[in-house]
Amino acid sequence: MPRSIITLTTDFGAGSSYVAQMKGVILSLNPEVTIVDVTHSVLPHDIRHGGRALEDASRWFPEGTIHVAVVDPGVGTDRRIIYARVGKQRYIAPDNGLLGAVVANEQPSELISLTNREFWLSDVSATFHGRDIMAPVAAYLSLGLEADKLGEPAGEIVTPVWPEVQGHARRIEGMVVSFDAFGNLITDITAEMLKAAGGRRITARCGNHETRGLVRTYAERPPQTLIALIGSSRMLELAVVNGSAAKKISAVPGDKVIVTW
Amino acid sequence: MPRSIITLTTDFGAGSSYVAQMKGVILSLNPEVTIVDVTHSVLPHDIRHGGRALEDASRWFPEGTIHVAVVDPGVGTDRRIIYARVGKQRYIAPDNGLLGAVVANEQPSELISLTNREFWLSDVSATFHGRDIMAPVAAYLSLGLEADKLGEPAGEIVTPVWPEVQGHARRIEGMVVSFDAFGNLITDITAEMLKAAGGRRITARCGNHETRGLVRTYAERPPQTLIALIGSSRMLELAVVNGSAAKKISAVPGDKVIVTW
Amino acid sequence: MPRSIITLTTDFGAGSSYVAQMKGVILSLNPEVTIVDVTHSVLPHDIRHGGRALEDASRWFPEGTIHVAVVDPGVGTDRRIIYARVGKQRYIAPDNGLLGAVVANEQPSELISLTNREFWLSDVSATFHGRDIMAPVAAYLSLGLEADKLGEPAGEIVTPVWPEVQGHARRIEGMVVSFDAFGNLITDITAEMLKAAGGRRITARCGNHETRGLVRTYAERPPQTLIALIGSSRMLELAVVNGSAAKKISAVPGDKVIVTW
Repeated sequence: MPRSIITLTTDFGAGSSYVAQMKGVILSLNPEVTIVDVTHSVLPHDIRHGGRALEDASRWFPEGTIHVAVVDPGVGTDRRIIYARVGKQRYIAPDNGLLGAVVANEQPSELISLTNREFWLSDVSATFHGRDIMAPVAAYLSLGLEADKLGEPAGEIVTPVWPEVQGHARRIEGMVVSFDAFGNLITDITAEMLKAAGGRRITARCGNHETRGLVRTYAERPPQTLIALIGSSRMLELAVVNGSAAKKISAVPGDKVIVTW
Repeated sequence: MPRSIITLTTDFGAGSSYVAQMKGVILSLNPEVTIVDVTHSVLPHDIRHGGRALEDASRWFPEGTIHVAVVDPGVGTDRRIIYARVGKQRYIAPDNGLLGAVVANEQPSELISLTNREFWLSDVSATFHGRDIMAPVAAYLSLGLEADKLGEPAGEIVTPVWPEVQGHARRIEGMVVSFDAFGNLITDITAEMLKAAGGRRITARCGNHETRGLVRTYAERPPQTLIALIGSSRMLELAVVNGSAAKKISAVPGDKVIVTW
Repeated sequence: MPRSIITLTTDFGAGSSYVAQMKGVILSLNPEVTIVDVTHSVLPHDIRHGGRALEDASRWFPEGTIHVAVVDPGVGTDRRIIYARVGKQRYIAPDNGLLGAVVANEQPSELISLTNREFWLSDVSATFHGRDIMAPVAAYLSLGLEADKLGEPAGEIVTPVWPEVQGHARRIEGMVVSFDAFGNLITDITAEMLKAAGGRRITARCGNHETRGLVRTYAERPPQTLIALIGSSRMLELAVVNGSAAKKISAVPGDKVIVTW
């Protein structure tokens, strides 16, 4: 049997000992599992940001990987914790919309509400269900436990309603969703949506700045040029060659991006 | 035999290549070991902060885990490097008080001063004993070496004297020890100490700010309320619902926290 | 067979989901491999900084370790991607000078240009060859693939020309290359070069600040003293005892350091 893999996505911050506590719990139950950090730099309590990072990363993992995601402002309230199988991947997360990006493309084939305390730590704190519930449940799954032992079928998953990308004749309105370490601005406008432009030259505007055309790579234009391109997650990105679009435009997540042609 | 686990706790900073050098040394001796980062974001040379993170995380790991901790301002001087077995866990650290929080609750059952150069790298630098002494010693232990081969019994461990929590009639004086990525302020006042309040309504004061009562979870009060609760490490925390207590109060580690009832 | 090891060095930023995507691709092909992060905090597009971190760390790893390095401002252009065997280590990187520090001491014994698409992902993006080319190639190598299957012999490797350390009679001119989490300033002046001083008392100057003599460890001088010492990578470092030389001197990478005796 190949080694099982568990990934972790949280808003605990790089270097948080909370993450190490979760790993300790997992390895206590299954010392053979491989644990991979997706990110612990999700903006605090930002469910959309965390969901986006989870979706971007999780689909590259081998079949059966168990992805634990903890962005959980409602910890200790009666929000549910769920297990979801989506395509080839498995997820454990609070049922607060964190799996929104994951289930946007494909419905879960299995959805369980975690209610069976048999697979939790014996003492469950009011503020850290990532360590006390989600970590041990993930470890038991990695050892081969069937998901239907974890609780009851969960019915509907909570799906958040984000402001949606608006399509008009020769115009798409979206927004900046995040930026990366290079200052590239990632939008919610997909490569698919841009097909409506039919290969015509597009203009992308954000604030007072605009780009002309789509380039294929960062190095096609002179340094400091603002460019638009389809990034590696198939989303429209604004970037500055050898520089930072986030700084040049002073844009932040939530800012409007308008594409016309 | 289950796979051995070595954890690392340092003040080298996230992304320091010093950490990778230690991992290279360990894997050169034992390529089968699992290495887990506790944190590399300990405040530079802050022995108390590092000791706290180590204690918070290490007790969640499986029996026999080897925890290497390097916060070592006296590297290259004659401070000792020690091996300690405390409960089910094993530790390697400079003998400078870094194990203070770990041994506060339970005395070491075995304490060795690392003097046997046979298990060190052949060239030992004056400034990086984490890589040249502690990493290879941890690797040999993970391969099954008996700890008493590492050197001589160490007698007493250095234990730091921190300002202590003061208990008075209906009043406890402690301090902020650290804050996490959410801006929650972690104090040195334990759940145990608060039992003296006998369930009476407490007030926690820090600077000009105070909280009324203890809540159980972050979500019990309206956004932006300052609250006090027992955190997941069983310490009193001050937090702001959907916000940052560190920012709201402008508190830093060392600030006084006074609980009355 | 011992477990294979792949290390990752990038400028993607700590917590970037790009790193997790690469790990997902690698584990999909070889779930048994051990992946180690060297650093993801290379300054964006800074080939010299990334090359330095790679060289500092990679030589400590076991023979045959596969080091993947992605600092790749020219991604999507016709710059090559190469495989190099240097001493006991193996490297995969864009051929843009990123391996400069590694090959400075020892010529590659094998150098291949990655042209065989058989070992790439089937869809290769224009902007993320780390995930789409380098990650799967590293995974196949870790499974035992011979390097000569990856493409054609590559001839010459691109080696960058950095400003060189100047040696004069009783005087060496170098520069600050980087600083670590302690604020220690790492220079490009090697322990070897300082042998010319023949044990005479040296003075190291940076801006308006200077140090007297070389110390062996940080703890030899009183707090806040500026000192010079040979660091754990055998380079001259400027440091402040219990403080930060980077702050005290306000020095940044590129600043001149002059040693006289």
